[in-house]
Amino acid sequence: MYPDSIKELIESFKFLPGIGEKTAERLAFSVLEMDEDQVELFSSSLKDVYTNVHKCKNCNTLTDQDLCFVCSDTLRDDNILCVVEDSKSVFLFEKLGVFSGKYHVLDGLISPLDGINPEDIGLSNLLDRIHNEKFEEIIFAFKPSIEGETTALYIKKILEDLDIKITRLASGVPIGADMEYVDSLT
Amino acid sequence: MYPDSIKELIESFKFLPGIGEKTAERLAFSVLEMDEDQVELFSSSLKDVYTNVHKCKNCNTLTDQDLCFVCSDTLRDDNILCVVEDSKSVFLFEKLGVFSGKYHVLDGLISPLDGINPEDIGLSNLLDRIHNEKFEEIIFAFKPSIEGETTALYIKKILEDLDIKITRLASGVPIGADMEYVDSLT
Repeated sequence: MYPDSIKELIESFKFLPGIGEKTAERLAFSVLEMDEDQVELFSSSLKDVYTNVHKCKNCNTLTDQDLCFVCSDTLRDDNILCVVEDSKSVFLFEKLGVFSGKYHVLDGLISPLDGINPEDIGLSNLLDRIHNEKFEEIIFAFKPSIEGETTALYIKKILEDLDIKITRLASGVPIGADMEYVDSLT
Repeated sequence: MYPDSIKELIESFKFLPGIGEKTAERLAFSVLEMDEDQVELFSSSLKDVYTNVHKCKNCNTLTDQDLCFVCSDTLRDDNILCVVEDSKSVFLFEKLGVFSGKYHVLDGLISPLDGINPEDIGLSNLLDRIHNEKFEEIIFAFKPSIEGETTALYIKKILEDLDIKITRLASGVPIGADMEYVDSLT
């Protein structure tokens, strides 16, 4: 029924998370109303992202250079390391603009129930870096969850003999939140 | 902050209707987790849709051929014409599978408030077709709205001297709807 190229575009949109048949159809039709330049940019940026973006060889953040924008920035405080679970967190914290140290991105969090064990999240790179770069403080900035807790405790245990200050992001009632929505876990 | 190609991909997703900064970021990152084949298909189908899809020279439905799948189908009933406001309606009705006649797609509906006048919606093509193809019945299948009403009345007026049965989609309470949600306009 649909012309082949529209059918393929609808299928392509369905690869994206949270996009079903109806939304994919709506998005595919909207492409027909775009300018040629927009479609060109969309099509080429998809390919470029796939071809050019890889992990920073030092800290594992997504980048299109050898070193990411943080590792190649000589003005950053190299005494503090913030350990995060994915590259998205790095970009998020940089947007907030409150942290001026370095980052290290793990390949996710330890989650035995999902079959993700300590050796799966790239800890050896992190430990190598900690030994080589002599940080004074390490901050674990994982999401507040059982996996985040487990990963932080596991790494803390490994590092306990080193003279490094280890901190966590505070968790609790968000500033500005209505107390009505606070549950016992919070 | 973001690598250039991720930045461009985020901008590209924002061209789509209903997609803002946060969703665009989420979608852009999800592209990094796709297979190479999927990204390849996505990128090429975007270009293909733009290059290959145009309007059927007979009925104005979107197609990648000279004639669309309805106009080129010799088994359809060519006594009945269903006039719709956009190609999406054709695909929708075909999915429902309840209509076996031909279609004609207008370039939208008459809407003086938005500056869309009768001469802007491609009526001359429709009238030429009606004169040439000798339909016995014409169905207006526009959305139930002031614009839909206006367009139907306007075309009906033009056709009133011809011996053609003119019908409308029924509008009213949808089957299965809860009467609680029916307002006075329905």
